[in-house]
Amino acid sequence: MNILVINGPNLDMLGKREPEKYGDQTLESLEELLRNTYPDHSFTFFQSNHEGAIIEEIHKFVTYSDIDGAMANFGGFTHTSVAIRDALHMLNIPKVEIHITNIHAREAFRHKSITAGACNGVIAGFGFNSYILGVKALELLHKDQ
Amino acid sequence: MNILVINGPNLDMLGKREPEKYGDQTLESLEELLRNTYPDHSFTFFQSNHEGAIIEEIHKFVTYSDIDGAMANFGGFTHTSVAIRDALHMLNIPKVEIHITNIHAREAFRHKSITAGACNGVIAGFGFNSYILGVKALELLHKDQ
Amino acid sequence: MNILVINGPNLDMLGKREPEKYGDQTLESLEELLRNTYPDHSFTFFQSNHEGAIIEEIHKFVTYSDIDGAMANFGGFTHTSVAIRDALHMLNIPKVEIHITNIHAREAFRHKSITAGACNGVIAGFGFNSYILGVKALELLHKDQ
Amino acid sequence: MNILVINGPNLDMLGKREPEKYGDQTLESLEELLRNTYPDHSFTFFQSNHEGAIIEEIHKFVTYSDIDGAMANFGGFTHTSVAIRDALHMLNIPKVEIHITNIHAREAFRHKSITAGACNGVIAGFGFNSYILGVKALELLHKDQ
Amino acid sequence: MNILVINGPNLDMLGKREPEKYGDQTLESLEELLRNTYPDHSFTFFQSNHEGAIIEEIHKFVTYSDIDGAMANFGGFTHTSVAIRDALHMLNIPKVEIHITNIHAREAFRHKSITAGACNGVIAGFGFNSYILGVKALELLHKDQ
Amino acid sequence: MNILVINGPNLDMLGKREPEKYGDQTLESLEELLRNTYPDHSFTFFQSNHEGAIIEEIHKFVTYSDIDGAMANFGGFTHTSVAIRDALHMLNIPKVEIHITNIHAREAFRHKSITAGACNGVIAGFGFNSYILGVKALELLHKDQ
Amino acid sequence: MNILVINGPNLDMLGKREPEKYGDQTLESLEELLRNTYPDHSFTFFQSNHEGAIIEEIHKFVTYSDIDGAMANFGGFTHTSVAIRDALHMLNIPKVEIHITNIHAREAFRHKSITAGACNGVIAGFGFNSYILGVKALELLHKDQ
Amino acid sequence: MNILVINGPNLDMLGKREPEKYGDQTLESLEELLRNTYPDHSFTFFQSNHEGAIIEEIHKFVTYSDIDGAMANFGGFTHTSVAIRDALHMLNIPKVEIHITNIHAREAFRHKSITAGACNGVIAGFGFNSYILGVKALELLHKDQ
Amino acid sequence: MNILVINGPNLDMLGKREPEKYGDQTLESLEELLRNTYPDHSFTFFQSNHEGAIIEEIHKFVTYSDIDGAMANFGGFTHTSVAIRDALHMLNIPKVEIHITNIHAREAFRHKSITAGACNGVIAGFGFNSYILGVKALELLHKDQ
Amino acid sequence: MNILVINGPNLDMLGKREPEKYGDQTLESLEELLRNTYPDHSFTFFQSNHEGAIIEEIHKFVTYSDIDGAMANFGGFTHTSVAIRDALHMLNIPKVEIHITNIHAREAFRHKSITAGACNGVIAGFGFNSYILGVKALELLHKDQ
Amino acid sequence: MNILVINGPNLDMLGKREPEKYGDQTLESLEELLRNTYPDHSFTFFQSNHEGAIIEEIHKFVTYSDIDGAMANFGGFTHTSVAIRDALHMLNIPKVEIHITNIHAREAFRHKSITAGACNGVIAGFGFNSYILGVKALELLHKDQ
Amino acid sequence: MNILVINGPNLDMLGKREPEKYGDQTLESLEELLRNTYPDHSFTFFQSNHEGAIIEEIHKFVTYSDIDGAMANFGGFTHTSVAIRDALHMLNIPKVEIHITNIHAREAFRHKSITAGACNGVIAGFGFNSYILGVKALELLHKDQ
Repeated sequence: MNILVINGPNLDMLGKREPEKYGDQTLESLEELLRNTYPDHSFTFFQSNHEGAIIEEIHKFVTYSDIDGAMANFGGFTHTSVAIRDALHMLNIPKVEIHITNIHAREAFRHKSITAGACNGVIAGFGFNSYILGVKALELLHKDQ
Repeated sequence: MNILVINGPNLDMLGKREPEKYGDQTLESLEELLRNTYPDHSFTFFQSNHEGAIIEEIHKFVTYSDIDGAMANFGGFTHTSVAIRDALHMLNIPKVEIHITNIHAREAFRHKSITAGACNGVIAGFGFNSYILGVKALELLHKDQ
Repeated sequence: MNILVINGPNLDMLGKREPEKYGDQTLESLEELLRNTYPDHSFTFFQSNHEGAIIEEIHKFVTYSDIDGAMANFGGFTHTSVAIRDALHMLNIPKVEIHITNIHAREAFRHKSITAGACNGVIAGFGFNSYILGVKALELLHKDQ
Repeated sequence: MNILVINGPNLDMLGKREPEKYGDQTLESLEELLRNTYPDHSFTFFQSNHEGAIIEEIHKFVTYSDIDGAMANFGGFTHTSVAIRDALHMLNIPKVEIHITNIHAREAFRHKSITAGACNGVIAGFGFNSYILGVKALELLHKDQ
Repeated sequence: MNILVINGPNLDMLGKREPEKYGDQTLESLEELLRNTYPDHSFTFFQSNHEGAIIEEIHKFVTYSDIDGAMANFGGFTHTSVAIRDALHMLNIPKVEIHITNIHAREAFRHKSITAGACNGVIAGFGFNSYILGVKALELLHKDQ
Repeated sequence: MNILVINGPNLDMLGKREPEKYGDQTLESLEELLRNTYPDHSFTFFQSNHEGAIIEEIHKFVTYSDIDGAMANFGGFTHTSVAIRDALHMLNIPKVEIHITNIHAREAFRHKSITAGACNGVIAGFGFNSYILGVKALELLHKDQ
Repeated sequence: MNILVINGPNLDMLGKREPEKYGDQTLESLEELLRNTYPDHSFTFFQSNHEGAIIEEIHKFVTYSDIDGAMANFGGFTHTSVAIRDALHMLNIPKVEIHITNIHAREAFRHKSITAGACNGVIAGFGFNSYILGVKALELLHKDQ
Repeated sequence: MNILVINGPNLDMLGKREPEKYGDQTLESLEELLRNTYPDHSFTFFQSNHEGAIIEEIHKFVTYSDIDGAMANFGGFTHTSVAIRDALHMLNIPKVEIHITNIHAREAFRHKSITAGACNGVIAGFGFNSYILGVKALELLHKDQ
Repeated sequence: MNILVINGPNLDMLGKREPEKYGDQTLESLEELLRNTYPDHSFTFFQSNHEGAIIEEIHKFVTYSDIDGAMANFGGFTHTSVAIRDALHMLNIPKVEIHITNIHAREAFRHKSITAGACNGVIAGFGFNSYILGVKALELLHKDQ
Repeated sequence: MNILVINGPNLDMLGKREPEKYGDQTLESLEELLRNTYPDHSFTFFQSNHEGAIIEEIHKFVTYSDIDGAMANFGGFTHTSVAIRDALHMLNIPKVEIHITNIHAREAFRHKSITAGACNGVIAGFGFNSYILGVKALELLHKDQ
Repeated sequence: MNILVINGPNLDMLGKREPEKYGDQTLESLEELLRNTYPDHSFTFFQSNHEGAIIEEIHKFVTYSDIDGAMANFGGFTHTSVAIRDALHMLNIPKVEIHITNIHAREAFRHKSITAGACNGVIAGFGFNSYILGVKALELLHKDQ
Repeated sequence: MNILVINGPNLDMLGKREPEKYGDQTLESLEELLRNTYPDHSFTFFQSNHEGAIIEEIHKFVTYSDIDGAMANFGGFTHTSVAIRDALHMLNIPKVEIHITNIHAREAFRHKSITAGACNGVIAGFGFNSYILGVKALELLHKDQ
């Protein structure tokens, strides 16, 4: 499978950010983890702190037939971006929303996801493993198509 | 008249997106439609998926005297962007907010427009014709100045 | 085209009402403006301050095939009348909601329209020109049928 | 691993319920699917339509050291049960909340989960595969302890 | 002290914008005012209308030890950006939120600040002097460390 | 029994309105259905699209002793009319609120009835049969007096 | 002084309605009470259960110079009518809103008045005496003009 | 017809409970009343104070073809049980929600029914006669199938 | 009549405060105005900026039989003081709440009165004349006892 | 006195649950504590995690004259159960709601008690001593009857 | 034990206030009741209708080591005073909030206590006995320290 | 400059209150800090726990021309006092609201300031330094007059 992995704002800072809390693993090590865990898949990694850049990355794959599934952690945009939600609605491949933390156990303004309604499903709360599970979910969604 | 036409996030995907729903007409054909319908006007077309780029496009015309009117479809930013509303407040030319769909007949979170309060008026629900009507509205606003 | 124009409560007072704000033009001059601007269309004008009378005017055209489009400014009923909304749902011709002022830039209780959800679209904020644009919108809706 | 699988109200009716929508697979086939997919794990399956029975099933494992992880789909109790949330807080093993459907894409009263805040994470929207992913999540949580 | 000064959307238009209201002083004159008032400090000025660019500017200083304090006026993003709030949480230097106007005396949607909760404090309502006070606040925070 | 039957706005359009949804039966056929079903009762039928006319119809029977019960479908006024509620409070005979559709299964703004609190009870969701059941309810209320 | 007295829905039923609660005095006796108490004033009494008729009664006096003040008890419309509020805004004479009962001590939905914001003041809670006080208020407003 | 009658929490206490208010008639006399009133129907009576037991009673009839209709008074569960609502959605026979009292005339938290949206209709406010009317409603729904 | 007149916070500043708006008349001139207008009544004037002092002034008259009526303008406490409301409930003489301005036409947080529910009625919006009307209201309430 | 003590969901786990927080005392030791503290009273202890079982326990004592008072800690049902509230309304003996913790100092969703309104009073926040105080309260209520 | 007893606004009027409802017992008799019931304790009684005086009474005991516990009935301030809550947070002795009535069974605005969150616990609904229980609670809290 | 410094409820306890959190500095040392930091200014310090006393302190300076600016920390009254807001509106000198802590980073009920809307600006979150900055702000406001 060819898998698109979108990471939103602040996720480029993994490892450099509050290491006692988030660990010393970087976004690069997350990407390496995915590649090592799933050597048979090919990954397209994309990270941006720009809402517009994320929208355009999604657009690229609306008509590009070689991608089999997408998973995305929209960070703080999860709770505010109607525009990303609209972009996701155009993308006719399996889509999984990912969160490193359990958003239901944090501040009230993180309990609601605007973007999740335009995905197939959500995986939240398992640290980097949320991504591992996300690929697994895409495999299963792919098999069911 | 010199008319600025701003299109916000996801509108670059017209025609490539859910064609059974939105038709097979692209943003280019929309622009052509406006040019053909109003051959006496000159149009400046701008589309961006970036909130900041839209703000800066508006800024450009705050002091530039050759533009006679603006119309804008802010897409998903309509419902969330205080920053675009602030930019619009600086622009002392007729401004019309445009929507392809009737936002009052969609999800509850689309019923409220943050940006409309900083425009002269709103035209919503007529498909591409909302833009045709928008130019007409600018002509009428222009005549009344 | 045969066009029905409905004006709701207080619109019979145009011109007699706060002329420094609304101008000295009356409802009659609005009707004349429409007739002069669109000499090829035939207009049926209706104004009432009675919610029930507006509902019944809408009913008249549910089965009457000679009307090609309707435009309506429901005044204060816009924000409160479920009954007019129900009546509009029966009317199978193009319908445009009109507002003289930009309701999004006024008191909060005017930001929400109950009736707009049962129309094709909305035009708000252009003074009497909102009606001029309304006819234009009906022409375009008519052509698309 | 020994894994506890709790299914809440109405999940005993899988397969017998709106088969055109939920498929013809029963709760038994779900349990068989898990056993077949993960032959190395041992499963304790529990289903109840009784809030109290679910609470007591959770209690059983508060002091019972042979269970390594729990996953639970609380059905309609997800959105209303403070008592189940309190029970989950006592259970010191990895816990995953499961939903067959994407609760963020359904009625507004299903967007909020009271029970999720007392679990490690949530997996929602992948049909029976949400359970497959749940076991995978427990494996990963287990490895990280 | 080395001080980072972030200005958000529309603040590049100072002086060019509603001069009867905001005065004829530009962002450049604001920067000059700070340099002249505090000749012993060194300033890094940054302005952007892009939420993502502001996030990345903050990121730059997460690991860069030569900056002693930051002050920021996030403009319209103040009330909407969870992503900027998340970025601020990583920045372990004194941080002051600045507003030119008294946000508590304006529209209701400006009374709430999402970003302020991730700063040390807030200074609002003193025009350009809010920035003068912001530097003073950073000096005092610096002394207390 | 002498029974008053009040039908509110848009109910005069039964049969002429979206026949594929509401059937081809008219208000007249509803009235005939009641007369045929209950040949021993005498009915006073009243329909109006005017809130004021409905209030006055209720007033007529406040002091008129020959009416034994009332049933009313207030249509869109159900959700908005404090004035009808006030009128109902004066009427000291059994009163039943009727709805053709199940208002609890429609749009959120139809879930709340302002007028029902001033009636003995409510019957909703059984099509024309709601009226048949309404007469039955009045018979039972009458017997209990 | 020439004084307009508007009574809204259900007030024509005074005396016939729950006499143990509202007394046996009718609207006619209220009118007589006002005439007897203030023999030097001339009164124009108007009562209607129709929102539209009340709006039109207000319209009549927008341009008619012989009326010196108006007082109005809008009954149930007090809490719901934006259209009456709009009509009142046109009437440039002293206006007093009257309530027989203390609306602040009744059901929560009666605590808010939509119409009062378009009057000079409100007198509520003194039974028929609220009208006596209303005339007194108009005298005082008249003297201050 | 074979009719299922479900009574929820506290309804087993009829007659033993506040007899001056609810009368001295018991649940048994209610059941007898139904049997006597409708000797041609066969009734299956079920009462439980357990949410789970009610869910399971509903489940029993999802696949059992001999029941022609159901009526249910869910008592306090009416306002809180998403799980019962989900169970009702599976039951493909006519379903009527019953209330002894007029829930719209009681405390605000009883105005909203979560379960009613999954039934055909609602009958509320007629005491034991609500059940008599419920059977009548089922007869009429049955005839229309 | 012996009449108690309570004025709450900031009313001691009348005349000294924004004279272009409130006029140059002081609290003393208001008291003189009442004495001159009603020479046959005896007044007890009380002003305090202290919630507790106002409560205790009310207490004084709970058992003191020589006071025939009270009128009170609670200023900013109107909208917040449950304690004054509780005190008013003990006072068994006619009570009138007074406001100089029309609180329904000001900021939203002034539309709701907590104290009015414990008075007989409210008079608001007539400037100092609200007090003149208040005495009149007490006379009328007194006559009706 | 014969005293009924009801403990709701999760209270059977006292001592086994987060002992560092709740101590190592069990429900049995709580019962023993009550028996030892009040040797002259006789206690009926009841614990259940089932809402229905609690309702039925309450029912048992509606007609059983040998119980002199009840105290109950409904755990998580406190905040959600309309059905338990309804059951309590039938029980004509002194009733005291008990909470081990101070519910006003915990999460917002625990601040509101649905069941307390149907009890004589509430004692919250004193650990096991809340029960000791509960018996004392019942003694005092008993003496006052 | 030395016990501080604070009574807030209107509690000085006990006995003089609505005696048919509150009985003819005064605050003095309440104090005597406490002294007689607990002859071994020493009490410091304080009553004030002034929020500021209550705050200062609390302050006195922040550093005064001879007081072993406090109980307080803040009357109407319970629901509004952030300042009393802040004062309570400084007082490091056992604190019990007392209410004579069951605040959960009264008007909705009395269901929420702002001050309770800063106390150890709450006792409400037992008349004067709430104070008797309050002392008992302080004894138990004291013993546990 | 002559500067008025108002400190509201509980601020007299600085230093005596939770010293590990607020430090061991008293209100006196705060006053001394201001005098030492700004030897050229003259300060009038006022502290009160009484809302009424704070209102009256503000009144004193409405007409007293020798005060050049005011700064105030209203403590808990910040979030509740309409009466203080009203008093501030009369004071025509520069006014700065001060908070020791960052109110935006504390409990939700502290995020909203009622009093700030009547000041020039707000400084919050810098400990005692908020006052140092407040004087600086007054100097700058003074210079701009």
